Amino acid sequence: MAYYGYFNGSILPVEQIAFGITDLGLLRGFGLFDYFRTYNGRPFQWDWYWERFANSAAKMHLPLPIQKEEAYGVVMELIGKSSLPDVAIRFVMTGGYSPDSISVVNPNLVMITEEIHPTPHTQFEEGIKVILDDYVREMAEVKSTDYKRVILLAQAIRSARASDVLYQKNGEISELSRSNFFIFKGDRLITPNRHILHGITRRTVMHLAQNDFQVEERPVLLSELYDADEAFTTSSTKKVLPIVQIGELTIGDGKPGKRTLFLLEEFNELVGNW
Amino acid sequence: MAYYGYFNGSILPVEQIAFGITDLGLLRGFGLFDYFRTYNGRPFQWDWYWERFANSAAKMHLPLPIQKEEAYGVVMELIGKSSLPDVAIRFVMTGGYSPDSISVVNPNLVMITEEIHPTPHTQFEEGIKVILDDYVREMAEVKSTDYKRVILLAQAIRSARASDVLYQKNGEISELSRSNFFIFKGDRLITPNRHILHGITRRTVMHLAQNDFQVEERPVLLSELYDADEAFTTSSTKKVLPIVQIGELTIGDGKPGKRTLFLLEEFNELVGNW
Repeated sequence: MAYYGYFNGSILPVEQIAFGITDLGLLRGFGLFDYFRTYNGRPFQWDWYWERFANSAAKMHLPLPIQKEEAYGVVMELIGKSSLPDVAIRFVMTGGYSPDSISVVNPNLVMITEEIHPTPHTQFEEGIKVILDDYVREMAEVKSTDYKRVILLAQAIRSARASDVLYQKNGEISELSRSNFFIFKGDRLITPNRHILHGITRRTVMHLAQNDFQVEERPVLLSELYDADEAFTTSSTKKVLPIVQIGELTIGDGKPGKRTLFLLEEFNELVGNW
Repeated sequence: MAYYGYFNGSILPVEQIAFGITDLGLLRGFGLFDYFRTYNGRPFQWDWYWERFANSAAKMHLPLPIQKEEAYGVVMELIGKSSLPDVAIRFVMTGGYSPDSISVVNPNLVMITEEIHPTPHTQFEEGIKVILDDYVREMAEVKSTDYKRVILLAQAIRSARASDVLYQKNGEISELSRSNFFIFKGDRLITPNRHILHGITRRTVMHLAQNDFQVEERPVLLSELYDADEAFTTSSTKKVLPIVQIGELTIGDGKPGKRTLFLLEEFNELVGNW
């Protein structure tokens, strides 16, 4: 297996990509990224991912050093150089090397291919547990590199035998640490509309769902969990992953919900034919 | 001029120090640092800086890969290898290389020497202007690498012909972007006690001030700026730097205050004899 990456214009083996110590991503946490995968060797929802990446960069005042068409060419070259049928692709852009450890001069941009870490089958079959945390991400709509919170919570998540954390602040739910959140109340599919990163899988699932369900994108209160029939989370690796327990609260009958599994099936069908 | 650094046990020229792409500081903003300087070739307040660094590491659940005495030996070796009478020393510790881009295995630790960027003389003579921002740092007491906010404000600071930003949230003042904040009301010296990084220069100045002033360490309200006679900020490079304008508000008569200049003199005397 060979993974290659693009670093500021050059293509080289991933192991050879390295950032010098004056990089503002390292020194000042000033970085953003994106992450997507291929299905059948083709990047999934490329247009939407690129749009989001460009949007994150703009909100961090970083000029894109590469345009969309050229980036697509690089991504396809990197995919071709890997010997796997499907790979993940990660973009990382930082404030670049700084002469005074604070001023931005030119961003550093890396694009690499990676092994996909698939979500274990048992999680789809049994659903996952999440714990609650009183938190909301700063600049949640930007896919910045700021993930201190969930790394600090790793021990608490393990102790609770949970898989992840669901953030809420002042009684309003936003998102999981790296994925979006949905509930079903009957045939109403409800998902938070603010203080979130607008996930591409979230967007895909909302499109898929609108034929069969009433989709509501709006603020979601913590108190609404008590009469939710089903819950799930979405991300590029989690797809449509059932949530059966939130803190001490069991959702529905503690098993993956039928509407959730229907959406997972629809999603799998979509990506199978991608 | 030669700057050397320590990276996970090896000493090498700073230009040769580089972080691979799976580092959690880069990918997830999971890093902390510290920064201090020498006077007369000796690290200033080494004991206090080490204590703070160790404390930041503990709060980020990262085990220190080196103990204090060994670290001191490395710092002295790095200082010796530079050809300058005085240098800055920067520690950077991240969550290290991660197999899945989220789990911590072993931290990466770098210690390097750098050129000191001294604060311009005119700023001490004329004082500086700062703008206000409605913000408080997450985990302010930890010297994490999270400095997105001030980098995003760079243009606003320049446009206002200011030098820095003073954070306040809900009417309570915390700190400047990378330095602490003090006001004088008569002979009372007042500084925020919470939502701040506890600066080593701040601590030094509070010690120096207690002979001549009544020092109050407590929450400081934005409204208190209106009857402040003097204001200043402290950091390892700013020492005791007068602030003469905060947003549209002129402090005192718009010139550096006499008590502030007295403390600057005391500080310069202390470091001159270090």
